[in-house]
Amino acid sequence: MHESQLLAEIYKHNATLGASGGARVLIPPGDDMALIQLGGARLLVAADQVIQGRHFAPGTPMDAVARKAIARNISDVAAMAGVPAACVATAALPAGMPDEQVLALAAGLRTWAAHFACPLVGGDVGVQASAGPLLVSVTVLAEPGPGGRVVQRSGAHVGDLLCVTGALGGSLAPDGSGRHLTFEPRIAAAHALLAALGDRLHAMIDLSDGLARDAGHLARAAGLAVQVDAAALPCNPGCGWRAALGDGEDYELAFACPGHPPAVAAGVPVTVVGRFVARTPGAPAVTLVNGSESLDADALGWEHST
Amino acid sequence: MHESQLLAEIYKHNATLGASGGARVLIPPGDDMALIQLGGARLLVAADQVIQGRHFAPGTPMDAVARKAIARNISDVAAMAGVPAACVATAALPAGMPDEQVLALAAGLRTWAAHFACPLVGGDVGVQASAGPLLVSVTVLAEPGPGGRVVQRSGAHVGDLLCVTGALGGSLAPDGSGRHLTFEPRIAAAHALLAALGDRLHAMIDLSDGLARDAGHLARAAGLAVQVDAAALPCNPGCGWRAALGDGEDYELAFACPGHPPAVAAGVPVTVVGRFVARTPGAPAVTLVNGSESLDADALGWEHST
Repeated sequence: MHESQLLAEIYKHNATLGASGGARVLIPPGDDMALIQLGGARLLVAADQVIQGRHFAPGTPMDAVARKAIARNISDVAAMAGVPAACVATAALPAGMPDEQVLALAAGLRTWAAHFACPLVGGDVGVQASAGPLLVSVTVLAEPGPGGRVVQRSGAHVGDLLCVTGALGGSLAPDGSGRHLTFEPRIAAAHALLAALGDRLHAMIDLSDGLARDAGHLARAAGLAVQVDAAALPCNPGCGWRAALGDGEDYELAFACPGHPPAVAAGVPVTVVGRFVARTPGAPAVTLVNGSESLDADALGWEHST
Repeated sequence: MHESQLLAEIYKHNATLGASGGARVLIPPGDDMALIQLGGARLLVAADQVIQGRHFAPGTPMDAVARKAIARNISDVAAMAGVPAACVATAALPAGMPDEQVLALAAGLRTWAAHFACPLVGGDVGVQASAGPLLVSVTVLAEPGPGGRVVQRSGAHVGDLLCVTGALGGSLAPDGSGRHLTFEPRIAAAHALLAALGDRLHAMIDLSDGLARDAGHLARAAGLAVQVDAAALPCNPGCGWRAALGDGEDYELAFACPGHPPAVAAGVPVTVVGRFVARTPGAPAVTLVNGSESLDADALGWEHST
């Protein structure tokens, strides 16, 4: 089963959430974070994990593993234009992992959480019965951003521009190094965009799966389609449009707004890369326009299976 | 390194938490849950995980795995006398895990979270690069209980009684089955104890590591020692005092109060099993009194390494 089918299957029962008590769920699973009402406060919450061999290569320094585990959760906070509040982490250690590595991982989680103004307030360390992959799971809590607005995935309108922050592609080097270990979560850029655009910031997502898939999430959440202009894509050095669309792990922001956005948000360049259009039955959700060619992005192979 | 040493090393830097922004941390890591201030609300948060081969046997039905992953977090809420609010979960799947198993796990997490009035509001599913152990990490959010009181580990006084709910020992059968998959988290009992004892409910913990270790946590958190009476222990059928003290995974409550507690809390029997005393330098934190014998519980081998 493809990962997106699996997640769709898991999330289809959302309507029943909260039926038997607990917090009031204002934004259910399926967005970058859920929003719940708790006492007098609205709280954003999300969880994400890094798995050795999938999200980082064996031999990656523990500080870099910790940074990525925390930072990709902070990126989810940016996608909602939220403000990080606190996090918790669990680590499942391979049997026989040296103590100094364990302590370096713990110190890294604590240090990077504090760096992103999101203190690590709890968690658990467990040891596997055998030498499986190292795994770190992080849950991040956040508050709605300036003005109390939470930006969801689902607000794009027909005619909105598709815009991205920064440059795309080539985040994960063949040897396991690269920007996926060093990216800056776009909290400040998200707040700057919200300040500049206000209610015109219709929808936003962070780019973890690659623009081809994540633009599709924005389009589908709004019942629309989106056309991406290959020539407009801001590509990292050495990357062409295929890498910019498909590589993933950029942790930049993609957003929808009517009319042109600011050219820069908190020092990060902003680029218009496409446009939202009405969805025609049977037509692709994401179309790549490359000169005179129009390609179905889904057919280009970026739907990856679990 | 022993697990408790490792955790002590990880937690010793708690004093720096929150120094660089984020939520105000009212109860730092080291208790069953952390307490943070978020906008106008106080929020309890904790994370815990289950690892195949450590916390459940291969072949355990996915519904039982999901139940345990959720229920042991709910047990942490009970230990603080809190009210469950919501949870998130991540699952790291072995490569090649059949879709129907994945869907059964997801359905189980959703169903059991709802059962415990703690809706599952988000998470992540990832697939390992190889067939490592199945791992489920759950973060639980909760609100302070009736009256706003949060019961910590650290409030025991000299002369307080050590009390437990339910019966102890034999939770984990040799074939992997047993009460550790079916226990009822003691939320209702915790609230009943709080209602009956009020401020006299000095300290509380849930019994995950076994009474010998968890009573030690209560004693050390208060700078005290504790004497446990072997003859008083409420043992499950087929269990003696060694099993009741050392088996772990009971998920009952242990608490400290001055004078006798109610005999029953929300239908669950309550038993006085010991007494807190001043700590003498060099003397053990937990002493087992067995007739005329006094044994150092730490020396009985219940300190397990990671």
